Amino acid sequence: MAENDTKQSLVLGLLDPSPQPNQKNDPTRRRYRRCRSAPLANLVHLEKNVGGALPYSEPTYAKLHPSSTQVTLFLAVYLCVGTLCFFLVKHQIKGKKTNGILDAVYFCVVTMTTVGYGDLVPNSVPSKLLACAFVFTGMALCGLILIKAADYLVEKQEILLVKVLHVHKKIGPTDILKEIEANKVKYKFLMTLALLLVLIIVGTIFLATVEKLDLVDAFYCVCSTITTLGYGDKSFSTEAGRVFAIFWIVTSTICVALFFLYLAELNTESRQRSLVKWILTRRMTIVDFEAADLDDDGVVSADEFIIYKLKEMGKISQEDISLVMDEFKNLDIDQSGTLSASDITLGQSSQTGS
Amino acid sequence: MAENDTKQSLVLGLLDPSPQPNQKNDPTRRRYRRCRSAPLANLVHLEKNVGGALPYSEPTYAKLHPSSTQVTLFLAVYLCVGTLCFFLVKHQIKGKKTNGILDAVYFCVVTMTTVGYGDLVPNSVPSKLLACAFVFTGMALCGLILIKAADYLVEKQEILLVKVLHVHKKIGPTDILKEIEANKVKYKFLMTLALLLVLIIVGTIFLATVEKLDLVDAFYCVCSTITTLGYGDKSFSTEAGRVFAIFWIVTSTICVALFFLYLAELNTESRQRSLVKWILTRRMTIVDFEAADLDDDGVVSADEFIIYKLKEMGKISQEDISLVMDEFKNLDIDQSGTLSASDITLGQSSQTGS
Repeated sequence: MAENDTKQSLVLGLLDPSPQPNQKNDPTRRRYRRCRSAPLANLVHLEKNVGGALPYSEPTYAKLHPSSTQVTLFLAVYLCVGTLCFFLVKHQIKGKKTNGILDAVYFCVVTMTTVGYGDLVPNSVPSKLLACAFVFTGMALCGLILIKAADYLVEKQEILLVKVLHVHKKIGPTDILKEIEANKVKYKFLMTLALLLVLIIVGTIFLATVEKLDLVDAFYCVCSTITTLGYGDKSFSTEAGRVFAIFWIVTSTICVALFFLYLAELNTESRQRSLVKWILTRRMTIVDFEAADLDDDGVVSADEFIIYKLKEMGKISQEDISLVMDEFKNLDIDQSGTLSASDITLGQSSQTGS
Repeated sequence: MAENDTKQSLVLGLLDPSPQPNQKNDPTRRRYRRCRSAPLANLVHLEKNVGGALPYSEPTYAKLHPSSTQVTLFLAVYLCVGTLCFFLVKHQIKGKKTNGILDAVYFCVVTMTTVGYGDLVPNSVPSKLLACAFVFTGMALCGLILIKAADYLVEKQEILLVKVLHVHKKIGPTDILKEIEANKVKYKFLMTLALLLVLIIVGTIFLATVEKLDLVDAFYCVCSTITTLGYGDKSFSTEAGRVFAIFWIVTSTICVALFFLYLAELNTESRQRSLVKWILTRRMTIVDFEAADLDDDGVVSADEFIIYKLKEMGKISQEDISLVMDEFKNLDIDQSGTLSASDITLGQSSQTGS
């Protein structure tokens, strides 16, 4: 029964955010800490407190993406090399021309984003092959910028958006952060939508005033550009227009891509939620029960249940578990089947010794 | 010590694929089954054996994606409505024309894929607004086709590719499946690359023979099309060319998108692997140990270690665990802190009764 009490408390402890220090020394009702929701993040904090050296300073997942410095560098190199190349072959490019360098940058951006108006087109074998090379590398680069934009750009403006959306309610900074955390994808989507609308309006007004298009044509050119359609019957033909285009095209095409990305994510999230709900509320049969009972002791503990259901949801795989278990066996120096403080100490002394 | 033996065996049991039935009734060395690597898939098999009714017939993750019937239906509706609309406004579209219906389908495909050559352009307010509407919906539709293509198209050809790549070795069907499973993303990438090369060659030959372009121009037009750049100085201007274009443009643009998708996935996978390795081999400190020890009993069990490390890897979140624990508490009818056969029976009888 003491064992059962312990397990029951573990179950509750996992859900209970507040530790109960007054029960610490009661043998039948020990204190259970809430499993940390962001173990590494907390760890960083804890290690700082104990004065430990940190091998990293960013959240772990940041390792999965290229750094923004790298992406900026790639973009700068791409634009410099592209501008230089297309400037050198400028007599092999036909179409509406303004300033030599400006046209080269503009052509480079129009090619990189795959807008491809066709107001400037390569007209010789070398320039055509150059354009082919630049469009493929440009697509890859746009993909990198997109990943980076998904990480940054949006989150910085989210707090503002939540404030605007909840202007009728008085909410504090903590509530804003909670609200954002709970509906992360929704706010990213709304933020991208807002940014997209601003870019569409700015683009339309610019084309109407500077490029002297009528409103429908300006809007049509905006749509044709941001979707990378680029029919090319309407495009940026003045010097001022092309300077604006260089910045506006990159921002708006990335923004449209983000818009569709978050739309898909919103959809996946809602499907994922109903899948999780279905798996959780599915009637548990004896077959499930036997499959979940890993150690065949006739009962399914909380830990076994968590691992079983998370595998059923497809969140974790047998491979993940095997990898972790290999490491567990390495760490379990005294072969007791559990890790104790002595294993850690033994491990540290052997590491220091070696 | 009996407790420790049990846990140790559990640890090994998780990794040991072969059950040991002869030890079943030995109280100190019970039989431990390997945790199933695909619980639902095995479940389907088991439930069939015991004659249970199945509420589903596809793998669970299929629920996360639209069905191929839905995508085909959307594409058919899009092309029919698009063709009808652009056929009705055909006198408001200027450019190189061939056959009325054919041009409408061709314009629809060129717009949907955002190639936008500009060889046919809308020339009135209604046709321009129509094009704007069709390019946005077309982009969303291409996204859906992309998801579907990522699910299907490629996997069907993978076995062939593995055979070709291992032609010097004699390998059986089981080895092929194993090889594919281990390097899933790599084979998907190679498969897409092979398909892409075929599409580029076919497109270049077609443009050179039917549209009478010289080889460089044909290749340049192919690159300009498959990347959705579509400058439009070279495009499909004959009837035969436009019929070919309708099918070839959709396939090749999706294929290029898949190529970049798998390239990114390959890169993410290798970064993910090094991240997992880093987390697993990171020196375990006392702080980690305390964080992993959920029930504060001074030892970290195998289950606790798995949950802790998977959270550190970002594979699972506190929210996932909380959701599963809520369900665990619901199922634990006798409040013992573990699920036993009696809980299942009680649950079933109460469900049948209600």
